[in-house]
Amino acid sequence: MKTARSGTVYLAGAGPGDPGLLTVRASALLDDCDAIVHDALVAPELLSAVRARRAVPAEMHFAGKRGGDESSARQDEITALLVHLARAGKSVVRLKGGDPFVFGRGSEEAQALARANVPFEVVPGVTAGVAAPAYAGIPVTHRGVATGVTFVTGHEDPGKAASQTNWKALAQSGTTIVLYMGVRSLPRTVQALIAGGMSPDTPAAAIQWATYPIQRTVEATLDTLAGRVDAAGLTAPVLAIIGRVVSLRDEIRWFDVPERRPLLGRRILVTRATSQASTLSEQLRALGAAVIEMPATRVEPLDRAPLIAAITGGGLSRYRHIVFTSQNAVHVVWDTLRAAGLDARALAGIVVSAVGPATAGALLEHGIAVDVSPRRFVAEGVLEQVEPVLAAGR
Amino acid sequence: MKTARSGTVYLAGAGPGDPGLLTVRASALLDDCDAIVHDALVAPELLSAVRARRAVPAEMHFAGKRGGDESSARQDEITALLVHLARAGKSVVRLKGGDPFVFGRGSEEAQALARANVPFEVVPGVTAGVAAPAYAGIPVTHRGVATGVTFVTGHEDPGKAASQTNWKALAQSGTTIVLYMGVRSLPRTVQALIAGGMSPDTPAAAIQWATYPIQRTVEATLDTLAGRVDAAGLTAPVLAIIGRVVSLRDEIRWFDVPERRPLLGRRILVTRATSQASTLSEQLRALGAAVIEMPATRVEPLDRAPLIAAITGGGLSRYRHIVFTSQNAVHVVWDTLRAAGLDARALAGIVVSAVGPATAGALLEHGIAVDVSPRRFVAEGVLEQVEPVLAAGR
Repeated sequence: MKTARSGTVYLAGAGPGDPGLLTVRASALLDDCDAIVHDALVAPELLSAVRARRAVPAEMHFAGKRGGDESSARQDEITALLVHLARAGKSVVRLKGGDPFVFGRGSEEAQALARANVPFEVVPGVTAGVAAPAYAGIPVTHRGVATGVTFVTGHEDPGKAASQTNWKALAQSGTTIVLYMGVRSLPRTVQALIAGGMSPDTPAAAIQWATYPIQRTVEATLDTLAGRVDAAGLTAPVLAIIGRVVSLRDEIRWFDVPERRPLLGRRILVTRATSQASTLSEQLRALGAAVIEMPATRVEPLDRAPLIAAITGGGLSRYRHIVFTSQNAVHVVWDTLRAAGLDARALAGIVVSAVGPATAGALLEHGIAVDVSPRRFVAEGVLEQVEPVLAAGR
Repeated sequence: MKTARSGTVYLAGAGPGDPGLLTVRASALLDDCDAIVHDALVAPELLSAVRARRAVPAEMHFAGKRGGDESSARQDEITALLVHLARAGKSVVRLKGGDPFVFGRGSEEAQALARANVPFEVVPGVTAGVAAPAYAGIPVTHRGVATGVTFVTGHEDPGKAASQTNWKALAQSGTTIVLYMGVRSLPRTVQALIAGGMSPDTPAAAIQWATYPIQRTVEATLDTLAGRVDAAGLTAPVLAIIGRVVSLRDEIRWFDVPERRPLLGRRILVTRATSQASTLSEQLRALGAAVIEMPATRVEPLDRAPLIAAITGGGLSRYRHIVFTSQNAVHVVWDTLRAAGLDARALAGIVVSAVGPATAGALLEHGIAVDVSPRRFVAEGVLEQVEPVLAAGR
């Protein structure tokens, strides 16, 4: 059964940045759907991982706002695209940064889909307002310190007469305040909170690049926050957190700790072929590096004619021993066998060896347990191992 | 490389209930860690899926509070257990419902680990305060309706003089209010909000069993909320949501819609063996059913002696044709081949057939592409297909 149903739109959260914070369900839908319509806030790493995993690529549509283009016209274009794709019978993942219903305009898209009678489902995501502070070592709630947390958009200018947010009430609510966006209006938001009765000494922090390895946290108090953000040169996407919980960072900071993650702040380009890069990348990420995979090599079979000649028409009977030197070699030989209508049984009577455990593992996935494994994992190691058992003339 | 590092505690969110809302990272850690310490709020389906996936079981510890046992003593026991497991060199996932830092006491556990010098990481999760309303068709924010949302614990009795939550300020904040827990104190919380200036007509809803297929939503207004929750018999875990966004449910309700999910509200027991149940279960869940897997059968090989005799010592050369009637048969034959030091090559010269595509797929995973596929997927179908090609006497 397909996970993603045709004609259905999935309004899915991509999480705050770290691709590991995607949900299992969103991941399965991304692997399976016909079309993906994504925002600017979705991590490029996440999309490239989806591309690498899929056998058949999805139709990709970028639906980010263009440089501050917040117009309803643009939003109408996006919903029209969703309706069009679904009516064409496609399964569509509408992927939004964070959670689709937390400042994501996801509910407006849901309304448009409902009005167009297009079936849709919502796949909630991890929101940056919880995750970014957590990565900074700041819990949004803590017994005896904050019994609640308010997520509020900083886009609303507190100077506007028609502002819907009652900053004075928020200042007195006793909850932690997490501001989404709004670097530009930050000075006025801070003024409104102080004017509303919040102590200027209230601990505060601003976080850039939520949950990415390059996440930056600037610590301050309410009255120094805007100035510090400006001095540190933080630009969007930035999230601010205001409340006594910020002080807990001193004790439970765990992510941006250079002693534990020596590669923190470094960006490392991994140039191995995509199919081989993931283990290396994962190890580098665990050490704190921001890894960018940019394969400089691609593994392609050369002219297959000699291989086909060696395999088909009983050609294999001429061989006593086959040494597989890489997983790639295993895949190419297997594909050639299958194209000739053969399978693992065609290697009966032939001694098979592999230069390393990964190559041996690839062979086992095709039903062949290697007969000889070298002690040294290089091609020469196989020779050392095979020599004594080889009869003269073989 | 192992994902879960030994001696490290992962404070991970399990999400609100639906196992699909677990994060990819938490899922990988659960599959890989040495020990799991979980709360009462973690979905049993999620834990049984982890058990089914793992080759080597994890050490499991239940660390839920016992019937309202909120004592610090109990909390101390839990943190002592985490420290003990990590110091014994184990990788530990501390799995909490929702997000570990949203009313989860996760930050207290982080403090205890930091004080004990035990390395820890936080894996944020999808919090019920966002996901349960989303499943009910209620966005917590919506342009022009709510520019913010406050998550607040309802455990704090508004009658207490020392209450940290300023209900009057919250009533005037203009944000959507999501109350976690606190069914018992709900009448007083509602009174406090109305006394604080919130309109008694404000739309409100209470949601039980967040994001489970049996999620129940009770609609009300602020002044009828407590009465309706009582009348409907909703008991913990319940979440309440108060604000004009609740009205959007009329338009964008998608989850609890009987026309789209005809099995909604039904609990279905799937008794197939675990290894075969998942496809059926997934199809039932897509139709709205709450599926409980309780395998009434278990597949076990019978006496292997005849099979071993047929396979070892060149015994296979007596056979011209092997018909695999199930995936289980493929696995048993493969295991017996491997135990005898053989692999797919041992079946060279033998015609292989399978009764269905799943069985053929299992064979291909072991390097064997079937020679004969029946048109009818039952054992007799194989005979029909094979008959014409069989020479007399074979």
